[in-house]
Amino acid sequence: MAVNYNEESLKKHAEWRGKIETKVRVPVGSREELSLAYTPGVAEPCRKISENVDLSFELTRRWNTVPVITDGTAVLGLGDIGPEAGMPVMEGKCALFKAFADVDAFPLCIRSKDTEEIIKTIKLLAGSFGGVNLEDISAPRCFEIEQRLKKELDIPVFHDDQHGTAIVSAAALLNALRVTGKKMEDVKVAMNGAGAAGIAIAKFLVAFGVKDVIICDSKGIICKGDPRLNASKQEIAEMTNKERVTGGLAEAMKGADVFVGVSAPNCVTQEMVKSMNADPIVFTCANPIPEIHPDEAKAAGAAVVGTGSSQYNNQINNVLVFPGLFRGALDVRATDISMGMMMAASRAIASVVSDEEISKDYILPYAWDKRAHDAVAKAVAEEARKEGLAKL
Amino acid sequence: MAVNYNEESLKKHAEWRGKIETKVRVPVGSREELSLAYTPGVAEPCRKISENVDLSFELTRRWNTVPVITDGTAVLGLGDIGPEAGMPVMEGKCALFKAFADVDAFPLCIRSKDTEEIIKTIKLLAGSFGGVNLEDISAPRCFEIEQRLKKELDIPVFHDDQHGTAIVSAAALLNALRVTGKKMEDVKVAMNGAGAAGIAIAKFLVAFGVKDVIICDSKGIICKGDPRLNASKQEIAEMTNKERVTGGLAEAMKGADVFVGVSAPNCVTQEMVKSMNADPIVFTCANPIPEIHPDEAKAAGAAVVGTGSSQYNNQINNVLVFPGLFRGALDVRATDISMGMMMAASRAIASVVSDEEISKDYILPYAWDKRAHDAVAKAVAEEARKEGLAKL
Repeated sequence: MAVNYNEESLKKHAEWRGKIETKVRVPVGSREELSLAYTPGVAEPCRKISENVDLSFELTRRWNTVPVITDGTAVLGLGDIGPEAGMPVMEGKCALFKAFADVDAFPLCIRSKDTEEIIKTIKLLAGSFGGVNLEDISAPRCFEIEQRLKKELDIPVFHDDQHGTAIVSAAALLNALRVTGKKMEDVKVAMNGAGAAGIAIAKFLVAFGVKDVIICDSKGIICKGDPRLNASKQEIAEMTNKERVTGGLAEAMKGADVFVGVSAPNCVTQEMVKSMNADPIVFTCANPIPEIHPDEAKAAGAAVVGTGSSQYNNQINNVLVFPGLFRGALDVRATDISMGMMMAASRAIASVVSDEEISKDYILPYAWDKRAHDAVAKAVAEEARKEGLAKL
Repeated sequence: MAVNYNEESLKKHAEWRGKIETKVRVPVGSREELSLAYTPGVAEPCRKISENVDLSFELTRRWNTVPVITDGTAVLGLGDIGPEAGMPVMEGKCALFKAFADVDAFPLCIRSKDTEEIIKTIKLLAGSFGGVNLEDISAPRCFEIEQRLKKELDIPVFHDDQHGTAIVSAAALLNALRVTGKKMEDVKVAMNGAGAAGIAIAKFLVAFGVKDVIICDSKGIICKGDPRLNASKQEIAEMTNKERVTGGLAEAMKGADVFVGVSAPNCVTQEMVKSMNADPIVFTCANPIPEIHPDEAKAAGAAVVGTGSSQYNNQINNVLVFPGLFRGALDVRATDISMGMMMAASRAIASVVSDEEISKDYILPYAWDKRAHDAVAKAVAEEARKEGLAKL
């Protein structure tokens, strides 16, 4: 039915030979111009920054520059394909950063899988940047890398695979609840997938005040006290599954209002959807093959269906998040990206869809909707100021 | 007399807030376009590169991307001002890379002065780049960092402060010899300054076949066997000062055909110039205040005078080198930058000044002369191929 995106994209990438390039912002075509942009004039801004490092945000592009950094270990659904092979994704993100929010992003692929080496490398480079976007680093290393960098750097650090996905999933849920007339504090959520994205979504929905989340990994429902759980799963077990339900995905979904899948193809049946509460909301985000095909989910009674793919309606796409989020953080020179700032981003994305526009097939703005990125930037900047995390 | 470049440049930098930015090369304004530049289509170029890393030069911008890397320890004449304070220079170089040779350069300032940490950081990032430009790293660390990276990476590595300066100085000498009717193999060169640039120029002039070089540091003439010499000075002592002259700069310059200063202000007197051979060539490159003012040098009999400053004629400016050098190296996917490639760059720069144009006040093309960068690129690419250092 659809275009063969793989083949066409490969052809395009071979033509493009790069999705971003450098643009020169200053004239350098004469002796006079070179004397201002380069030597001898450039000595003076250097001197000023050396007296006050904060001026690096005023006199260079640092204020607007963010690296998109990966080690190539969890690229798309492709897994550990190596740093160079992650570059097409990183370049793509950099293009979206610029096109949607005028952020100057630069792709860096690190040839190491060692947590300490990655942290060290990023810390050594941080003086060149206004923030750091971590990308496609596999769990559980991504948790420590992000946490350590957040603590040890004074510029905002954001791991998109965790929080970008969580922010846009919460935005989708906010609007699916508008469509179905349910309230956050009344809904029970069943989740499948306890990787970086799944854990982040679960924490995020708890922060948004859902009644309960039950989260499954490949072995079944995650329950407090289970000795097989690793540190991040133990942490999430503390916050979820209040009634200590045990079993598998079928048990988790029974009576739930919402299903969120960030897991594996075809693991959800129509029977499972039918076992949910009235007007169930189904986010079937595995990519490229979802947990259940959206048409099957609808046929089984789903009131709202979201997916991870651009092929269907209601794509739950973190492209809606990262450009505006960094725009807002950079605009006020935020020192961190807090839970509050991320929740503000979710609400902002949801708010872009007006009461007139909203429907079960349109719960999220399109990724290229400028309104969404502007709204996220504004909300994130305001929240950073409110929380005292803004230097401007 | 002149504009106050410092004040004006500071003002301009505050207006510009960055001399480079990112430019998007692909359309991302619709579902279809996003599906090709980003997900899901981007998975296919990722897969292909993961099967064959060389394809990262075909399917991403790697083929044209070079970091301009510093640790901020030897920025202009300002010394160790810190990585963030080096950024205005690095950004400036990136702008020149793009404007003069369409190379996509990106500035990275490393928060470390540790040789091993700097080498490690660059090695971990090398998969994102087609070459590496080292900048403003102090001696003697710069020697080891460059040597190790040249050995351990398979992309070209170039420390501009050493070799860029050497290449353009040799080009200036080639044409000064045309003006004065002297030959490389007949001239004796006296030098002052044995830092990164001085050592590199001396080695380079020896490679070009000058009769002899006598090089002074702040303690006087460098002579084989002197126990006070460090490793890099011992090495240069082996290649220079064949007659084991001792003493200071005055002794070094007596009877020399050429003086090259990359040292300190006002250390050369008119008497020293008068003590040189007939039609002496004087390159007085200390910046912003030269070893001897060019007018004084001329009054003392200098036939050709070059300086490091854009205020006077014959600026010996390594902006003539690095853009075209990397253009040529990237065009043929060179694995190294050899002495032969650097010498080819010198000859190419010199050759741009035609017999009709050349005069004692015009021995080098202007930095913004496109002919120079094109000629350097072509010559470097040809030489790389000739030496078997080109993958294309």
